[in-house]
Amino acid sequence: MNESLICANLSVGDEGVLRFAGQDVRALAGYYGTPLYLMDERRIRDNCRRYRRAAEESFGGQSCVLYASKAASFRYIYEIVNEEGLHVDVVSPGEIHTAAAAGFPMERVWFHSNNKSDEDIAYAVEMRVGFFVVDCMEELEALDRIAGEAGIRQDVLLRVTPGIDPHTFEAVATGKVDSKFGFPMADGQADEAFHAALRAENLALRGFHCHVGSQVFDSDVFLLSAEVMLDYMARLRAETGYVAERLDLGGGYGVRYLPEQPELDIEGNIACVGAFIRKKCAALGYPMPAISLEPGRSIVADAGLTLYTVGAVKRILGLVNYVSVDGGMTDNVRYAMYHAPYTVLPADRMNEPRDTVFSVVGRCCESGDVIQPGVPLPDGIRRGDLIAVCTTGAYNYSMASNYNRIPRPPVVMLRDGDCFTAVRRESLEDLLRLDA
Amino acid sequence: MNESLICANLSVGDEGVLRFAGQDVRALAGYYGTPLYLMDERRIRDNCRRYRRAAEESFGGQSCVLYASKAASFRYIYEIVNEEGLHVDVVSPGEIHTAAAAGFPMERVWFHSNNKSDEDIAYAVEMRVGFFVVDCMEELEALDRIAGEAGIRQDVLLRVTPGIDPHTFEAVATGKVDSKFGFPMADGQADEAFHAALRAENLALRGFHCHVGSQVFDSDVFLLSAEVMLDYMARLRAETGYVAERLDLGGGYGVRYLPEQPELDIEGNIACVGAFIRKKCAALGYPMPAISLEPGRSIVADAGLTLYTVGAVKRILGLVNYVSVDGGMTDNVRYAMYHAPYTVLPADRMNEPRDTVFSVVGRCCESGDVIQPGVPLPDGIRRGDLIAVCTTGAYNYSMASNYNRIPRPPVVMLRDGDCFTAVRRESLEDLLRLDA
Repeated sequence: MNESLICANLSVGDEGVLRFAGQDVRALAGYYGTPLYLMDERRIRDNCRRYRRAAEESFGGQSCVLYASKAASFRYIYEIVNEEGLHVDVVSPGEIHTAAAAGFPMERVWFHSNNKSDEDIAYAVEMRVGFFVVDCMEELEALDRIAGEAGIRQDVLLRVTPGIDPHTFEAVATGKVDSKFGFPMADGQADEAFHAALRAENLALRGFHCHVGSQVFDSDVFLLSAEVMLDYMARLRAETGYVAERLDLGGGYGVRYLPEQPELDIEGNIACVGAFIRKKCAALGYPMPAISLEPGRSIVADAGLTLYTVGAVKRILGLVNYVSVDGGMTDNVRYAMYHAPYTVLPADRMNEPRDTVFSVVGRCCESGDVIQPGVPLPDGIRRGDLIAVCTTGAYNYSMASNYNRIPRPPVVMLRDGDCFTAVRRESLEDLLRLDA
Repeated sequence: MNESLICANLSVGDEGVLRFAGQDVRALAGYYGTPLYLMDERRIRDNCRRYRRAAEESFGGQSCVLYASKAASFRYIYEIVNEEGLHVDVVSPGEIHTAAAAGFPMERVWFHSNNKSDEDIAYAVEMRVGFFVVDCMEELEALDRIAGEAGIRQDVLLRVTPGIDPHTFEAVATGKVDSKFGFPMADGQADEAFHAALRAENLALRGFHCHVGSQVFDSDVFLLSAEVMLDYMARLRAETGYVAERLDLGGGYGVRYLPEQPELDIEGNIACVGAFIRKKCAALGYPMPAISLEPGRSIVADAGLTLYTVGAVKRILGLVNYVSVDGGMTDNVRYAMYHAPYTVLPADRMNEPRDTVFSVVGRCCESGDVIQPGVPLPDGIRRGDLIAVCTTGAYNYSMASNYNRIPRPPVVMLRDGDCFTAVRRESLEDLLRLDA
């Protein structure tokens, strides 16, 4: 059963109660109530540091690591990431505003998104974000105009789609040529954007961006991206003399959701990508650009854990057994949307045999509201028991909704044996706040 | 092209601009901004009235129609539904609280949900909701205790699962025997709950509830449910003498999302169900119970329309064309989650030929953020144009999230040529409200 403790921040304490980041989850549930998002601050910082050190060692001092903040975006997370010296990838004025509220230095903010309105661009220019990752011709033209009006020359990268099928599931595969993101290389649109960016008076083209995979555990896809991108950059240099200062290879490193999945070797993977790029640059005679990576999921996912209280247990004709918990697709939509796997634990019955298989389902009035099917749990599980869902730090709070008019849970940070609220629990009054 | 005007509240006005509820959508978008949820109040009221009249005529004066408010839950909608004399089906304290804020009479509130915590039950008892639809044994016991502590005798229905496969898609099929909802009839659990409810000192068992289908256009599934339920009730009467006062057949009537789908014949369908129940009751010698239905989607869906502004148009190698709009899975998750179909219109180019097929995608940093693939639109569509997505009144605002830290759009009501805000647009400051 210990194989289900899929991350080093999980352990079992007295009376078979799960501990997370060294703290007894029953005590935390008792104090804060459920559903409850817990986040292990030490783990977030460790993940940040591992990426930053590995990038510095393997890519050199000009490299940078961006936290892709859509994975988990709230004020306090930007404070942590700032203290750890990372940059951030933001995708909306809301993320920029939240980063700013945390005092995040705007020059380390990179603004992504396939669709930035004039208002979005004006806001980001006014905030003086460091980089725009330009995704389409409409943006390039609007940004050139708005930067000019603001009297600045905006640093930009161009997002290109190198046409690589990442062999991950379609919904998050964004580097294929048939993508809503970026300029396709294959049909000359990337070239066109490149020339337009060079011509644009108020834009300073610093290099290129691509993003191919998601939830990948080895570096093949990064090596392939780097190869295609560097060949492309070498061709542009031959044609125009332009030398890119920066190459951003995007994100996509994987996270261990199930015991049978590997643990990601961050250092090994990045070393491999770094060695490949150095060799490739040498072969092309291209000055090594500043490389950046954009981990999101792999910074925060395994720093998160969600606690629920069981409300009902149903056993139906030997067909299926249900455990209903007090949250669901409102706080974790990932099974309902992607059939995403999770490790689910009987948080206060960790020493009992898990001899019965249950579907762990939510409280929403919808059959698709499933947290995870096929979960082995103790047969005696009952109303009032705690359920823990592991590895929920990414794309859980950030995707939460008020469906069924259910308030969103708080995010409680665990740090050095202490705990404190980073995002408070939504109240019934909060739900009415926008109602006229 | 007029076949794409799938509901009577859609028309085309001057200069090829779409009109909704008789109002020019370009003017509304200009005033309120986009993305924008519009709701046609007259249509909501008409839908309520059609159900209410049909139920009275076909089921008799004791019948009632419940609006399943999870389809669209905000303060003003409960005001409308109250004025139209419907009851409401709520699934959480949040929905109860919102109904109460609208002055909705609590005796017409029915509390559903597969998982009500002790706190939920205590809140609903304190609010004096009319009915609990009891879904599991844990709830039955907790409710009996909490009602006793409050010194009241609570009216309840038992939700049973009649074991009918509604032949709709799995995620919303809730009446099959392997369901997280209700007490299965097939294995005696419904009988057990029935006897427990009769024994419970502080519960008054008024009858039974079932819910089988979703998005059904004829009444087969309701006839089958009624037959199974009435046979069941007749058996219980034979065994115990208990006569149920009420039978709730749930919801599930369909909505026209595409031109090729039928328009629902509410009156015809309900007349058919009413005639069947009368005949069946006569055959069983069972006194006609008060019948209730729970439409949600079919009350509000076609009263809704979402407006977006185009931000980018991409044409990739003849493979696919993309139109990116300024909303997406954050305000309408239904394609991303269910591959739900929608009719999408070029709201300010309605007189142009729709000669090019586009994927209409959102602004979220995720490939799965698709509003609708395969949409015919004018080839000349470009940044700044308006896109309308029809039939978005149900399960759009109610399922909205802040993913990518994107503020939720406002809900603007259209009434007799007038317009006003029912739910205001979320601001950047609002996004930080819960952050510590």
